[in-house]
Amino acid sequence: MSARADAVAAVVAERELDALLVVEEFNLRWLTGYTGTNGLALVGDDLRVFITDFRYVEQADHEVHPAFDRRRGERDLLEDGRNALPERRPLKLGFDDANTSVRTHGRLRELLGDQVELVAAGGVIEDLRAVKDADELALVRTAARLGDEALREVLHQGLAGRTERAVARALEDAMRDRDAEPSFPTIVAAGPHGALPHAEPRDVEIPAGALVVVDWGARYQGYCSDCTRTVATGPVEDEARAVYDLVLRAQRAALDAVRPGPEGKAVDAVARDLIAEAGHGDEFGHGLGHGVGLEVHEGPTLSKKGDKHLAAGNVVTVEPGVYLPGRFGVRIEDLAVVTDAGPDVLSSYTKELTDVG
Amino acid sequence: MSARADAVAAVVAERELDALLVVEEFNLRWLTGYTGTNGLALVGDDLRVFITDFRYVEQADHEVHPAFDRRRGERDLLEDGRNALPERRPLKLGFDDANTSVRTHGRLRELLGDQVELVAAGGVIEDLRAVKDADELALVRTAARLGDEALREVLHQGLAGRTERAVARALEDAMRDRDAEPSFPTIVAAGPHGALPHAEPRDVEIPAGALVVVDWGARYQGYCSDCTRTVATGPVEDEARAVYDLVLRAQRAALDAVRPGPEGKAVDAVARDLIAEAGHGDEFGHGLGHGVGLEVHEGPTLSKKGDKHLAAGNVVTVEPGVYLPGRFGVRIEDLAVVTDAGPDVLSSYTKELTDVG
Repeated sequence: MSARADAVAAVVAERELDALLVVEEFNLRWLTGYTGTNGLALVGDDLRVFITDFRYVEQADHEVHPAFDRRRGERDLLEDGRNALPERRPLKLGFDDANTSVRTHGRLRELLGDQVELVAAGGVIEDLRAVKDADELALVRTAARLGDEALREVLHQGLAGRTERAVARALEDAMRDRDAEPSFPTIVAAGPHGALPHAEPRDVEIPAGALVVVDWGARYQGYCSDCTRTVATGPVEDEARAVYDLVLRAQRAALDAVRPGPEGKAVDAVARDLIAEAGHGDEFGHGLGHGVGLEVHEGPTLSKKGDKHLAAGNVVTVEPGVYLPGRFGVRIEDLAVVTDAGPDVLSSYTKELTDVG
Repeated sequence: MSARADAVAAVVAERELDALLVVEEFNLRWLTGYTGTNGLALVGDDLRVFITDFRYVEQADHEVHPAFDRRRGERDLLEDGRNALPERRPLKLGFDDANTSVRTHGRLRELLGDQVELVAAGGVIEDLRAVKDADELALVRTAARLGDEALREVLHQGLAGRTERAVARALEDAMRDRDAEPSFPTIVAAGPHGALPHAEPRDVEIPAGALVVVDWGARYQGYCSDCTRTVATGPVEDEARAVYDLVLRAQRAALDAVRPGPEGKAVDAVARDLIAEAGHGDEFGHGLGHGVGLEVHEGPTLSKKGDKHLAAGNVVTVEPGVYLPGRFGVRIEDLAVVTDAGPDVLSSYTKELTDVG
């Protein structure tokens, strides 16, 4: 993990900063190993400082990488952060402008005075986090495997006649039984309800002959998986079948385009163009996918706005969907590692339309 | 709920603003009823606008109070927010400086131009939220009741010989069985582990003759409860008993001080002084309590820094603790509504030291 701090220090030097202030919880965890709340880190050339308060000192002793000088501060850590800065002035301090509130920024300015320049440096750690190392990939892989095991256990009992909420609960329990937890609230949405991309499970029985969208993920030792399958409870109408086939074709084509090099929007376009050609472009109202790691939504983005180039070690979802309001929805999502040899797909449940009963 | 928007509009007028921009999720839910992510509201004299994107339009139709003009925007709602502002210029727009990032603030400034002045107005809705209305109190009360039922179910089976993690899981499952969910990750910490105020449950069996700190809460229809009990698994050493009695005495004294009028720090001092007099002041390293509602931690704060006056309708925790590193910890926490007649305590499990086996 010291390699991570070194990578941050390299960016800090490249941007001609003296130090970077890190407080956002996922960035802090990635950088230091700390899993509590209320922590602060400073990284610069010879600077590796971590500070937390009374409540988390013992936890930090266990968790924080030994490369960091661990200190105990007050509940409000900003003043302790200032005291840990190098003494030279003037000093350029990078801060996370995407995760620092206007109020906190004002307090920082006041605390630090004129001789410390606050430089917007949001995204530095997120960009590094987008490329996973071997330890991280192993955890995401495990999370995906545990999530798939849980799904199999739940679908094995059939869906028709159970409520959406009972199925969602069973799936979440099955993940908890495996020492994982849901990485986001599980979606189980049958028939017309499946036409809401972010449907909440209802106390409504799943009927026979319906498509059911199941979107779920596991978090294992901090790392997330994310997957969606659309399954059937008996024979479905022809158009549902046709839309399913279209989404699957688009999903596979986009997955084939996942490799180091292209921008996220280029991969998004592969699926989007296919779906648009089939006349369903307006019914695919979200992006193709997103990065997954400590957060279930992180970089890189695979959407019309995705302007970052995919790189080996990215972990991304590929999840086109078509939603016909009042009728049904279809979404098919895989989680994949970007490798030089193409996508290493971590999701293992079949993508053939399956009648689970 | 229209009363809530009216209360916000009154503050907006009092501060001589033309409108308040609301995007933080709990504030948005309190104000409009919307439970999704990615929403934006504007409130002013004759202004009640709610905007969300494609994914949440149907949900918003069901949830958002009819006083609001509901509109559909793009994924990035800021531009749509600008377009929904009154046309008069110059215009003063309040924004939530405590929850708006420096980056978003910069984008807003760019979008809005020179004729719209952005005025820091963080806390406007949080201050209103701190006083609960009857609907909210009913939900918090239900959350507390469901949490207590879950605890009774779990303690009934005894604790000695079960792992901390199994007990935490059982408690969380028992809440889920009652249509509630944990309002925060449950703490079950036995013996020396209880000396960590924010201990994580371990895969370690709870021994006999130990104190066990259980800190848990339920979230029911969005509203949270929060409670802590320290129970025993058989007879405990004399000093554990003595510290328990001290913490309970401090907890009861502080609870007696809960009424409209005093600042949070005055109530905190009641417990703190008692614990300090007994020689354990340094081992009570956190605040006495905090408000609870849509968030498990919200205003008002009962700590050395609590400078807001308690008001009828506040819901607060009263939770002193004494932590002896390497030995044991004791924390006793009730959830109470502040009323003119004194604290209306929502927590029902006994505070007498109980041997649960």
